[in-house]
Amino acid sequence: MLIFDADDASYVRELADYVAIPSVSRDATPAVMKAAAEWLVDRLTFANGHLVETEGHPVVMGEWSGVEGAPTVLIYGHYDVQPIGQREEWTTDPFSLTVDGEVMRGRGATDDKGPVYIVLKVAQAFLDQEGCLPLNVKFLFEGEEEIGSPHLSAFVAEHKAMLAADLVISADGAMWRPDEPSLSIGSKGLLSMDLVVTGAHDDLHSGRYGGVVANPIHALCEIVAGLHHPDGRVAVAGFYDGIDALSDERRQEIAAVSFDGQAFLGSLGLQEGFGEAGYSLLEQLWERPTLEVNGVRAGGKYTVIPHTAVANISCRLVPGQEPNAVVDALQTHIEEISLPGVAIELKVDPARIPAYTVDADHPAIAAAKAALESVYPGEEVLLAKIAGTLPPVTLFEEFLGAKTLFFSFSTADERLHAPNEYMRIRRLREGMRAWEQLWRLLATGPHRLHPSPARESSAKHGD
Amino acid sequence: MLIFDADDASYVRELADYVAIPSVSRDATPAVMKAAAEWLVDRLTFANGHLVETEGHPVVMGEWSGVEGAPTVLIYGHYDVQPIGQREEWTTDPFSLTVDGEVMRGRGATDDKGPVYIVLKVAQAFLDQEGCLPLNVKFLFEGEEEIGSPHLSAFVAEHKAMLAADLVISADGAMWRPDEPSLSIGSKGLLSMDLVVTGAHDDLHSGRYGGVVANPIHALCEIVAGLHHPDGRVAVAGFYDGIDALSDERRQEIAAVSFDGQAFLGSLGLQEGFGEAGYSLLEQLWERPTLEVNGVRAGGKYTVIPHTAVANISCRLVPGQEPNAVVDALQTHIEEISLPGVAIELKVDPARIPAYTVDADHPAIAAAKAALESVYPGEEVLLAKIAGTLPPVTLFEEFLGAKTLFFSFSTADERLHAPNEYMRIRRLREGMRAWEQLWRLLATGPHRLHPSPARESSAKHGD
Repeated sequence: MLIFDADDASYVRELADYVAIPSVSRDATPAVMKAAAEWLVDRLTFANGHLVETEGHPVVMGEWSGVEGAPTVLIYGHYDVQPIGQREEWTTDPFSLTVDGEVMRGRGATDDKGPVYIVLKVAQAFLDQEGCLPLNVKFLFEGEEEIGSPHLSAFVAEHKAMLAADLVISADGAMWRPDEPSLSIGSKGLLSMDLVVTGAHDDLHSGRYGGVVANPIHALCEIVAGLHHPDGRVAVAGFYDGIDALSDERRQEIAAVSFDGQAFLGSLGLQEGFGEAGYSLLEQLWERPTLEVNGVRAGGKYTVIPHTAVANISCRLVPGQEPNAVVDALQTHIEEISLPGVAIELKVDPARIPAYTVDADHPAIAAAKAALESVYPGEEVLLAKIAGTLPPVTLFEEFLGAKTLFFSFSTADERLHAPNEYMRIRRLREGMRAWEQLWRLLATGPHRLHPSPARESSAKHGD
Repeated sequence: MLIFDADDASYVRELADYVAIPSVSRDATPAVMKAAAEWLVDRLTFANGHLVETEGHPVVMGEWSGVEGAPTVLIYGHYDVQPIGQREEWTTDPFSLTVDGEVMRGRGATDDKGPVYIVLKVAQAFLDQEGCLPLNVKFLFEGEEEIGSPHLSAFVAEHKAMLAADLVISADGAMWRPDEPSLSIGSKGLLSMDLVVTGAHDDLHSGRYGGVVANPIHALCEIVAGLHHPDGRVAVAGFYDGIDALSDERRQEIAAVSFDGQAFLGSLGLQEGFGEAGYSLLEQLWERPTLEVNGVRAGGKYTVIPHTAVANISCRLVPGQEPNAVVDALQTHIEEISLPGVAIELKVDPARIPAYTVDADHPAIAAAKAALESVYPGEEVLLAKIAGTLPPVTLFEEFLGAKTLFFSFSTADERLHAPNEYMRIRRLREGMRAWEQLWRLLATGPHRLHPSPARESSAKHGD
């Protein structure tokens, strides 16, 4: 067993230097993004850490391959963070990591700087205390996760050999609940699109033209209102095509999860939920696809009939749904709508991410389960699905042929993407212990990974 | 007949000084607003022009009462302008009045600096050439018209005696079409409100919570979609209460107006219109009330279920509709909607303006018709209604007991409130000639106003 005997304050202090770099991928200057990337590079000297330029923010790469014949894992994470949102909603400076009781608050604390920091400390402890890691480890930290990883696909395709691994372990992606260890065996896919309704060629005065021209807002609302049935089902023909009916076995599994739906909703300030009829809350969350309008925008509080109205829509997909088929179904649905005096267009974003699953009996799941059980003795490890989407896993499967294990010590309630993001401090230490065990278990023992003999040597950097 | 023999260039030059003051009531500093007000004061020395402070931007007042026993008119206008909108959409500097062929372009050129300038030039010409005006004239120019005249009501109520007049003549409000003299015999009323739909107490990640909580955007769209029937009628029970059926006579009158609906819509970039079934385009525009959603706003193009969604709604009212009754009908409609997982609120703004009408046989209409006929010989003067709302007229009727005559030489197509606002230069000279005739006709002859003997002396300023 490694010894992690630094006190919490020193961990927080070191992590605070990283959080202090405001690496907001949407807004920050290249210099700021590079500073965050270099903070990581400085901690990856043992793995020849270095920056690789892309058309966007650079990628941090590293590789330590000191154990011949051992399996290789690729650690994924990101050094960029979300914008802070409304500054006045933060109780402390977003970029000064601040201890507040049992948590540390700051932008990126839990998404994804804290979780990545854990991995770096574990690697360092192995090297300091044992002189080597238990298996071969590669690192890939990107700077564009929060803006949809626009250049990651090309990067992974281009550097396949360099990135080749038997398993990807993601330090990104949160556990479901703070008091219950869980592993994700799947995540939903994602489609994003804009519905654009256009009327006149210019905004019109609503007094002088109201009542004689179609109002694009009225039309947009009518279309949006028609996207769901009153019972919550998506009203787009073909939307659910390809999805297997939920088996009784899975229903029973989900029903057995200890979960207080009313408390869950209450924590959001809600007295009742709303979702697709015929499914329990957890079934809706884990097993069913969704179509949500994330934004609407048109005109304003003045006397106008805006010439255009836009709704931003996203769909979360489940296994069985083919993203392009869902796009076709949506386009057909929209094309069949005819409203007088307006033009209607559905602009679907190019990224089309299918749902992702890992078999519950994949060795990595077994190893991760054992690792978590060693850190949380007596707790049952929940095999959950992430209702969210983690686009990189699709790339890793497609280009590297490797499954991804989510092994983050972030928790879903830690205000990811919101003001006052925080991470529980105790999770740093729990995470280090768990990663240590995971690496050991993946290297040896009943759940060890079997290195692919076909995999090319990854020693040739720069391919 | 007065002589207006300055050349156009000198008129434009003088008006340009006024346009150069960026008196945007929504944004400008008090000093800028005051500068615009003082530009007017400087031209009202003959009428003891002065500023009166209010809780908002000051009001410019003036009074010339040199003809004992003559009727008194109160001239209304405003010195504030709309924001410029997108600067890059302007082809020239918004605050440099620029001649471009037959028009002069600049913010406020036609709304309302040009039309007010006309009145000032006419008064000056009377004094220079005849030593007096044909009737007694008071002036009231406000600085908050473009932000809804929030302090005008209190001001008029407080200064009733000082403002007392036999007729208000508004230099604000545009004629319908550039090539056809017209007079307005009515304008629509106005209600404004916000429909607010609220879900959770915070924005939620649409991946992690989508499908299990109600989405306020979906609910908002469903409510908005339910505000109209598919045939364009407002679906709020009681909305049309109190409105007289359109008489055959009025239908015939409107049908007789020379109007090319297809060209009208084509000029807006539309191939078809859309409005309440059973009414022609002009009937919809002039005679029927409307409910338009002017704005919607919620969330954005990111993975969120926003905790709140807002629609800005306005209703234009016609004679017979009682504003408070319409508010009650809307509140009842909204209260009867029950959607799971969201709270719905309709916040109605305090200003509730009923429709306004002047009898077509009011002496001021007859005088104005004759004045326009003298300037546009051979043209028929159209008695139109303004589909828009001019809130001050309601105040003048309520507090001063005086009807308002709209006598502006602005035209509705001159991009009021939009980038590249302009005014036709020839309308300056036409307007001066018309105002001269109007004042003469209101003072003497068959259409003269009869001064109210009951009206208090207005010599006591400061009441």
